[in-house]
Amino acid sequence: MQASARNQFSGTVSEVIIGAVNAEVHVGLKGGETLVASVTKESVEKLGIKAGLEVVALVKAPQVIIITDFGGYKISARNQLPGTVTEVKPGAVNSEIDIELAGGDKVAATVTNDSVETLGLRKGQAVTATFKAGAVILAVPA
Amino acid sequence: MQASARNQFSGTVSEVIIGAVNAEVHVGLKGGETLVASVTKESVEKLGIKAGLEVVALVKAPQVIIITDFGGYKISARNQLPGTVTEVKPGAVNSEIDIELAGGDKVAATVTNDSVETLGLRKGQAVTATFKAGAVILAVPA
Amino acid sequence: MQASARNQFSGTVSEVIIGAVNAEVHVGLKGGETLVASVTKESVEKLGIKAGLEVVALVKAPQVIIITDFGGYKISARNQLPGTVTEVKPGAVNSEIDIELAGGDKVAATVTNDSVETLGLRKGQAVTATFKAGAVILAVPA
Repeated sequence: MQASARNQFSGTVSEVIIGAVNAEVHVGLKGGETLVASVTKESVEKLGIKAGLEVVALVKAPQVIIITDFGGYKISARNQLPGTVTEVKPGAVNSEIDIELAGGDKVAATVTNDSVETLGLRKGQAVTATFKAGAVILAVPA
Repeated sequence: MQASARNQFSGTVSEVIIGAVNAEVHVGLKGGETLVASVTKESVEKLGIKAGLEVVALVKAPQVIIITDFGGYKISARNQLPGTVTEVKPGAVNSEIDIELAGGDKVAATVTNDSVETLGLRKGQAVTATFKAGAVILAVPA
Repeated sequence: MQASARNQFSGTVSEVIIGAVNAEVHVGLKGGETLVASVTKESVEKLGIKAGLEVVALVKAPQVIIITDFGGYKISARNQLPGTVTEVKPGAVNSEIDIELAGGDKVAATVTNDSVETLGLRKGQAVTATFKAGAVILAVPA
């Protein structure tokens, strides 16, 4: 698959929770992390998404928030992946931040240059890549 | 209506599926495609969204993923619109990709320059503009 | 908390509506506006989100649509915050638009340069910062 989403995580579905219109899908990554995806119930049915299925989870870089210090807060976003900044690529207004997770997976985040300054983002920094379950698209073998 | 969302699709509601908190709205475009929007149940009620209503579906360019090759995968995103790249506008970190759908509607996507290179995005290329139902905002006549 | 989301609104939960998989959380801001966040039911339970709790609502700048003229339309997005443009920061492809709300809160939106031109965005302009409930992440004291 060739897709423009910068983040493409390979994993295995571990759980599917079905609601009236939407569903929540848990995906175990090879590195040990678990991702949560919110998709419509119809997608779960049409794509035959169930525990044990190998999938690819797609997340666009602008959907990822970088947290450097929780400062006593907990966050509602279902995906919170600790990692280390490997590169900061500055642009005119936005920068791309590349992060490596403990398990070896990589995450790219697009943030504004103001956030790079405010957070002092730099190579080697410990951060948490955070995104909502609703930001995740699942790809399954046809 | 004057709004900054680069994608504004005119269409007619064909179906509304109501859940406990959220709802799914299907919108038929003039070009023949069908869009799916996920909105809250309260919005459906307050805005009187029902089959037959003419609406405008708004989608921001950073929400759109471009797929050039499914490589044997199916995708959970409910909106998958085949089209042709009409222009690549490069920036420092991100590029804007303009796509024309078979039915004549246009789609703008913002992707990172790395994705432009990896996918070899260029004018004339056949691609699929992909976005989640949750990325769609509906505008209805007041 | 140190997070890259450009928009961080402090407020108090006024209402929680629980669905099968997702929940809707209403947050009253100090300036008087009410935000609506869509989070998973599990987050509500794990974080103990309930009326009266003080929270921070995080929204990334690319999630915000700017509307300058509704032109007889109503919008499904649950968050529609009237304000005034305080600065336009142009980049190569995208610009950042800073907005001050009536109650004093600030909102940053990332839009394409084409939208800046089409809408004639400029300092002092009255606009409505618009984003979906699904774009909001909640942070609560641990």
